[in-house]
Amino acid sequence: MERNIKLTVAYDGTKYHGFQRQANALAVQQVLEERLKGVFGHALSITASGRTDTGVHAYGQVLNFYTTGSIPTERIVSAASGVLPEDIVVVAAEEVNKGFHARRDAKRKTYMYRIYNSRLPNPFELRYAWHVRTELDESLMNTITRQVVGTHDFSAFKAAGGPPVSPIKTIFSANCSRQEKLIQFTFTGSGFLYHMVRNLVGTIVEIGSGRRGADEFARILASHDRRKAGATAPPQGLYLMCVEYE
Amino acid sequence: MERNIKLTVAYDGTKYHGFQRQANALAVQQVLEERLKGVFGHALSITASGRTDTGVHAYGQVLNFYTTGSIPTERIVSAASGVLPEDIVVVAAEEVNKGFHARRDAKRKTYMYRIYNSRLPNPFELRYAWHVRTELDESLMNTITRQVVGTHDFSAFKAAGGPPVSPIKTIFSANCSRQEKLIQFTFTGSGFLYHMVRNLVGTIVEIGSGRRGADEFARILASHDRRKAGATAPPQGLYLMCVEYE
Repeated sequence: MERNIKLTVAYDGTKYHGFQRQANALAVQQVLEERLKGVFGHALSITASGRTDTGVHAYGQVLNFYTTGSIPTERIVSAASGVLPEDIVVVAAEEVNKGFHARRDAKRKTYMYRIYNSRLPNPFELRYAWHVRTELDESLMNTITRQVVGTHDFSAFKAAGGPPVSPIKTIFSANCSRQEKLIQFTFTGSGFLYHMVRNLVGTIVEIGSGRRGADEFARILASHDRRKAGATAPPQGLYLMCVEYE
Repeated sequence: MERNIKLTVAYDGTKYHGFQRQANALAVQQVLEERLKGVFGHALSITASGRTDTGVHAYGQVLNFYTTGSIPTERIVSAASGVLPEDIVVVAAEEVNKGFHARRDAKRKTYMYRIYNSRLPNPFELRYAWHVRTELDESLMNTITRQVVGTHDFSAFKAAGGPPVSPIKTIFSANCSRQEKLIQFTFTGSGFLYHMVRNLVGTIVEIGSGRRGADEFARILASHDRRKAGATAPPQGLYLMCVEYE
């Protein structure tokens, strides 16, 4: 009997060329499909909630696939841990209805972005945060970050080269806070354009460091012009935290 | 004019065969000596507060060396960051009196040990914590940990193969606490025997998981017999936090 299995997966993206399977570089999807084959007894074709770029991490990527394998659903997590490399962890597995589709049915996604804000680098944060030397005003950045809440045309924060999708997205919550040298952004939205979180963070950091005025953000958002926004923040600070379904 | 320079160094020990220079494997000391040569204009001979093992980390290793180089002391930190790999960071530099010796003059050292306590591994903690699956009782472990405070013969927690030194050490403070899935031990003492922190943690975890009785710890400590204590905890959870001088 065929089952539709939903997996929640955490991974350290440092060593992978993103999530999506590629011809000439190792992606997380390929590792999952090849290693989990043995657990289910047949080739797998995985659908993810979306791709993540090279160096981007996940605490809660969601994917689904169909299987005729006989392994009980409650044994999948532990079987997966026996075959996967240590930097990819299946944290939950459940059987879902036949129609469930990890990408199309996703209703909300949450991303986190971490900055290590200090004059000197922290050797333990190299792969896990963006090191920004200039002192950042997290209170001002929080005020700016909250301006993205609502439904907007985010064309100004969309990278060239992404798939042709509607630039209109709804952000349910967004904030920025500091704990000592670590600054953390959180964005929850209906969906995100290609590089959107990294472009938002790159732009907000330019304001938080004083290089741009606080009043510029609203104008950049309204311009729908990518050239008006700031640089793209690097991938290693970005984490896909969770994907929610109905 | 010759100066005696004291450096405080942070490093991610994952890729290095410990601190101490070795013939056939790359150690942190070798990287520092070779890369800093250019900053000072001559070969350096570094003395550290002590060695750390393969995979062990440091936030505050201290070392000293003599230089006839002309670089002003206040420019050393930034010059070092230009020549060192990203996983070794000089966080402070100061000129000290000629007699200062990073190992002999050390009065107190503080080590931290991190455990990630959860059924499933966390891909972001692989290199930075010991993953213990069994649920640990941090309150009981804190009670046991505090028993090491005072002056004791720590022979039961000394690895074979260390240098022949007195097994009697004074521990000024020691505790264990939990924040969600992370358990953290901190030990401050006059000095530590080879593998002493890792052997203490390995033994205390056996008690915290219920495999040994809480009353066994005092007996193990009093036995002075390494065979009575538990297994050595793995290196990646250990951090040399700071070294204090008078």
